[in-house]
Amino acid sequence: MVNVAVLGYGTVGSGVAEILWKKQSHVNRRAGEEINLKYVLDLREFPGDPVEKVLVHDFDTIVNDPEIRVIAEAMGGLEPAYTFAKRALEKGISFCTSNKVLVEAKGAELIEIAKEHDANFFFEASVGGGIPVIRPMIECLTADHFDEISGILNGTTNFMLTKMDQEGVAYDEVLAEAQELGYAERNPEADVEGHDAGRKIAILASLNSEKQVSFESLSMEGITKITNIDFEYARSLESSIKLLGSARKKDGKIYALVAPFMVPSSDPLYAVNGVYNAIKLHGDMLENVMFYGQGAGKEATASAVVSDIQDCVRRLGRHREILWSREPAELGDIMEYPFRFLVRVKDEGEEEQGSGGPTVGSAATLKAGVVGGKLAQFAAALGGAGRLVAPRGVTGEAAFLTKPMSEKELNAAIESTGVSVIGRIRLA
Amino acid sequence: MVNVAVLGYGTVGSGVAEILWKKQSHVNRRAGEEINLKYVLDLREFPGDPVEKVLVHDFDTIVNDPEIRVIAEAMGGLEPAYTFAKRALEKGISFCTSNKVLVEAKGAELIEIAKEHDANFFFEASVGGGIPVIRPMIECLTADHFDEISGILNGTTNFMLTKMDQEGVAYDEVLAEAQELGYAERNPEADVEGHDAGRKIAILASLNSEKQVSFESLSMEGITKITNIDFEYARSLESSIKLLGSARKKDGKIYALVAPFMVPSSDPLYAVNGVYNAIKLHGDMLENVMFYGQGAGKEATASAVVSDIQDCVRRLGRHREILWSREPAELGDIMEYPFRFLVRVKDEGEEEQGSGGPTVGSAATLKAGVVGGKLAQFAAALGGAGRLVAPRGVTGEAAFLTKPMSEKELNAAIESTGVSVIGRIRLA
Repeated sequence: MVNVAVLGYGTVGSGVAEILWKKQSHVNRRAGEEINLKYVLDLREFPGDPVEKVLVHDFDTIVNDPEIRVIAEAMGGLEPAYTFAKRALEKGISFCTSNKVLVEAKGAELIEIAKEHDANFFFEASVGGGIPVIRPMIECLTADHFDEISGILNGTTNFMLTKMDQEGVAYDEVLAEAQELGYAERNPEADVEGHDAGRKIAILASLNSEKQVSFESLSMEGITKITNIDFEYARSLESSIKLLGSARKKDGKIYALVAPFMVPSSDPLYAVNGVYNAIKLHGDMLENVMFYGQGAGKEATASAVVSDIQDCVRRLGRHREILWSREPAELGDIMEYPFRFLVRVKDEGEEEQGSGGPTVGSAATLKAGVVGGKLAQFAAALGGAGRLVAPRGVTGEAAFLTKPMSEKELNAAIESTGVSVIGRIRLA
Repeated sequence: MVNVAVLGYGTVGSGVAEILWKKQSHVNRRAGEEINLKYVLDLREFPGDPVEKVLVHDFDTIVNDPEIRVIAEAMGGLEPAYTFAKRALEKGISFCTSNKVLVEAKGAELIEIAKEHDANFFFEASVGGGIPVIRPMIECLTADHFDEISGILNGTTNFMLTKMDQEGVAYDEVLAEAQELGYAERNPEADVEGHDAGRKIAILASLNSEKQVSFESLSMEGITKITNIDFEYARSLESSIKLLGSARKKDGKIYALVAPFMVPSSDPLYAVNGVYNAIKLHGDMLENVMFYGQGAGKEATASAVVSDIQDCVRRLGRHREILWSREPAELGDIMEYPFRFLVRVKDEGEEEQGSGGPTVGSAATLKAGVVGGKLAQFAAALGGAGRLVAPRGVTGEAAFLTKPMSEKELNAAIESTGVSVIGRIRLA
């Protein structure tokens, strides 16, 4: 029998406890050992709840009990989770967590401590909730080099963007609905500004580079400026708009960001809708691999935490190497990474039609030529960008589809021609 | 240093050797040990090929060399692969394979032998080529119960069906193209009749039930009867047609089959096109999880085999439990499992329009009522099935969308009313 403890009896923690109680025989058989939930740590009381029999209020009770071999943390936040993880691992107690803040900031260090004490630090549930992605990356995809990891890593924003796309609902309205449904986290900023996705792509980029890619170093752009007009342009390009966390390798450097992207229908991420998440990796041999599932939610996340507990139990006393050092990865300046952009600028009405210039993309969605004046100069400054036909009823603006170019180059074109930018979205 | 051998220098085997030679430092770092390819077994000679230095023609050389700790097999077929696997494992040499025929028929037994000798029998590449699915199932998804596993498990047929759907190419033409491109295996029957997909779903169903689900016990239906008219009906239902291997649990029994299914656009399998494969699992906590990637191809498959070699190396001398016993799983009769069907029957012209009866599905795609006479009797015998509007230019037939019913019930309705069936396709 292996004794385990759960830290935090909130949504995920109570889900973990319920699985350990209700699915005992299945969980034990697949762990190869009987798992006994000896303690649950929470500062609160839960009168009448089955947790009462195992509830403790002091971490010392758990960490000082020599029978405890595995601790699962589901409290969230950096502290006290970090201190608890460190103390547990230093005693050789394996530690697993769904806490992306902890993993992003301290993952490399905690893996190191785990290694020193023949224990394990596992964190499958910290990225993609119930979607297996961490373990597949470190156990299955070990022969490939990945030059891109891109994922829909936040269910709330994907729910919102899907609604905007499929039902034409406005941003404010769909945010209110997401909050009503309880999809939005306590602070909606973490979702809509891309911070949640940022921590997750930082973890994946770190595992891929075997070094530290820090959340703080990422470029982050949320979905707050996305409008229904952007979706109409997207549809004209057979695309949708998704908030992606993306890390790309180029010339030995890592370029990582969170931003809304136009995702074409040929991309497997295109069909990932609602609260579902997916992580796509592009490898030198495997090409595209994608993992899809529920990125959040009590049961899905708890299921992933229990899988980590089971794996810790199977590996008691034996450290599973995870290559992730504290050394900072070499990051490139995202402003210098080439993307294609859809750029919407104000059409101030002084333009003359049909001054030529190349067109890009589907002929049906593009005007035959690029208009003259300031817009024509802008198109030329972009190295010849195709102008898209504006969606029905949209006036006073012009939209261009650029060739691959850095944001620095794009900004230079904007500045030199004096166009007023309404919005810009990268193409995936 | 760990010495390994590869059996078979064909497409996959040579891919494995190339990775071990060309990506040494990456492969070794992630295996935690230096891996040395000491032997490649093949009956043929390869003058001028780098394999010459390690080529042997006799398995005894390999299995009798006490330095060999891991063997990767990529020969295909049951024999001599089975004998070689057994002999290796009995000596405590770990064995990994991309050979679905071997795994489906002898997986349970070889796992047992591996266990007895503290070795491992791994077979990630036998299902889904480069897609991690076996290891995620046994390492990551260990808390869930899965009541359905459905997958696009054959790239050739998916390439063909995608072409038929997107370009309206006829079956014969697209088969010829698949053969030209080298996508079709030596015997196209294995692909188009569903045998290849059948072996793979048998393996996945076995792992899920922890018992033997044999290929021979599966119901298998290929894609040879699928026509462009079927795709037109599918489109009217916002669906596509995919050849799925599917195993479902109901009342403790497993119902497994390979057949073409109408997959609605809301299903993540809908967007899996071309030679890509995907496996979707439905769990009691995780709901849908899906793994997507290249199901075949030299590099993708070889990458998965090398990952298995790396995992064998990390686990030298320690057996990783895989729950799959030789005991037969309890299978249900697929004829009794409820599906919804699209049934196309001949309209012999004696019918009268508009005799009422309920309609099913999108109003726009259904006639207002069900026609009278034999067809009306058939609709009634189906328990009230909605009739679909025939695609433009299609005459002399009527198509019905049934409620969930077993194929036995469907056959009874067909027999009792004497309609002539043109085709039937299940809805996913």
